[in-house]
Amino acid sequence: MQYPQPIAKLMDSFMRLPGIGPKTAARLAFHVLDMKEDDVLDFARALVSVKRELTYCSVCHHITDTDPCRICDDSSRDRSMICVVEQSKDVIAMEKMKEYTGLYHVLHGAVSPVDGIGPEDIYLPDLLKRLQDEEVQELIVATDPNIEGEATAMYISRLVKPTGIRVTRLAHGLPVGGDLEYADEVTLSKAIEGRREF
Amino acid sequence: MQYPQPIAKLMDSFMRLPGIGPKTAARLAFHVLDMKEDDVLDFARALVSVKRELTYCSVCHHITDTDPCRICDDSSRDRSMICVVEQSKDVIAMEKMKEYTGLYHVLHGAVSPVDGIGPEDIYLPDLLKRLQDEEVQELIVATDPNIEGEATAMYISRLVKPTGIRVTRLAHGLPVGGDLEYADEVTLSKAIEGRREF
Ligand SMILES: [Zn+2]
Ligand SMILES: [Zn+2]
Repeated sequence: MQYPQPIAKLMDSFMRLPGIGPKTAARLAFHVLDMKEDDVLDFARALVSVKRELTYCSVCHHITDTDPCRICDDSSRDRSMICVVEQSKDVIAMEKMKEYTGLYHVLHGAVSPVDGIGPEDIYLPDLLKRLQDEEVQELIVATDPNIEGEATAMYISRLVKPTGIRVTRLAHGLPVGGDLEYADEVTLSKAIEGRREF
Repeated sequence: MQYPQPIAKLMDSFMRLPGIGPKTAARLAFHVLDMKEDDVLDFARALVSVKRELTYCSVCHHITDTDPCRICDDSSRDRSMICVVEQSKDVIAMEKMKEYTGLYHVLHGAVSPVDGIGPEDIYLPDLLKRLQDEEVQELIVATDPNIEGEATAMYISRLVKPTGIRVTRLAHGLPVGGDLEYADEVTLSKAIEGRREF
């Protein structure tokens, strides 16, 4: 007798998540067995609705339940500025700050030669197209303050500066090596204030 | 703008699992967003079926999809022996070994005064009742080889020995401080062979 089939299947699903090995998967699966049925149903529904109700904006690639997303679609936003971030989570962090009123562009990653991730593997070509089509005057590069993020920022800067668009980078003040999404609002706000030309 | 509602709900569900904080929950939720829809549906179905298709055996308290469980219901098993374990996972580990042919009793925990867990908080009273009702000649105490497991074993031994039932403990050979469920089959098999009287 091995794990009962339903437990084995659930362990399998847990193991597909990042950072979860067999031992943790077993612990989580047995925990689910002991949860209230309503909580398990909520969990199952939440999984499905994340997948079914959310998609990515075809303009800025931020997660959204409408296309274009509410930010791209908001006529009160300043269309002369695009803030480039690595992840949708970073847009959420920026929006919490409630100071930035421009648009976004979510790259879904960063250039990383070590991991074999080139500019074509993220939404970088797409960004360049947006810059041709739209009335953008400033590009704020808010990639993560780590090696890949800095490299991506430099790459974007080199491509975009010749077009005459102002390219700025969030001021350091962000914890170096950290994740932008976990910066507190004051730090983020200071980083925006002190943003500098490349 | 905060996390979109479906993401926030899924993060909430992940955070109800043991050892998962807000940072991991966000990472997992965004990972789900990028999973194939079929995999997400499988995950959701697996959650529900663990809860709906499995229950605990009313005799031995092992997880099961029938009641009594297939082990309790199997007339070829040796009803003169009961092996007491802390968790259903331990039954699964014992059964993998394919050497033990007796019955089981799953305590669902161990006595732990530090955590306020007394004999009444686990299926210990229930075990004593089984010993009165059934033709048991030997009780193999296979609680985990750690402080709580040993304390629980001692407690059971003191209660049961006066009744004349033979009470044995798995031989050490199990890694001390470890989890019984991760012991390899050879170690487990040796531990059974070398089991000793209390
Ligand atoms: Zn958008
Ligand atoms: Zn049973």
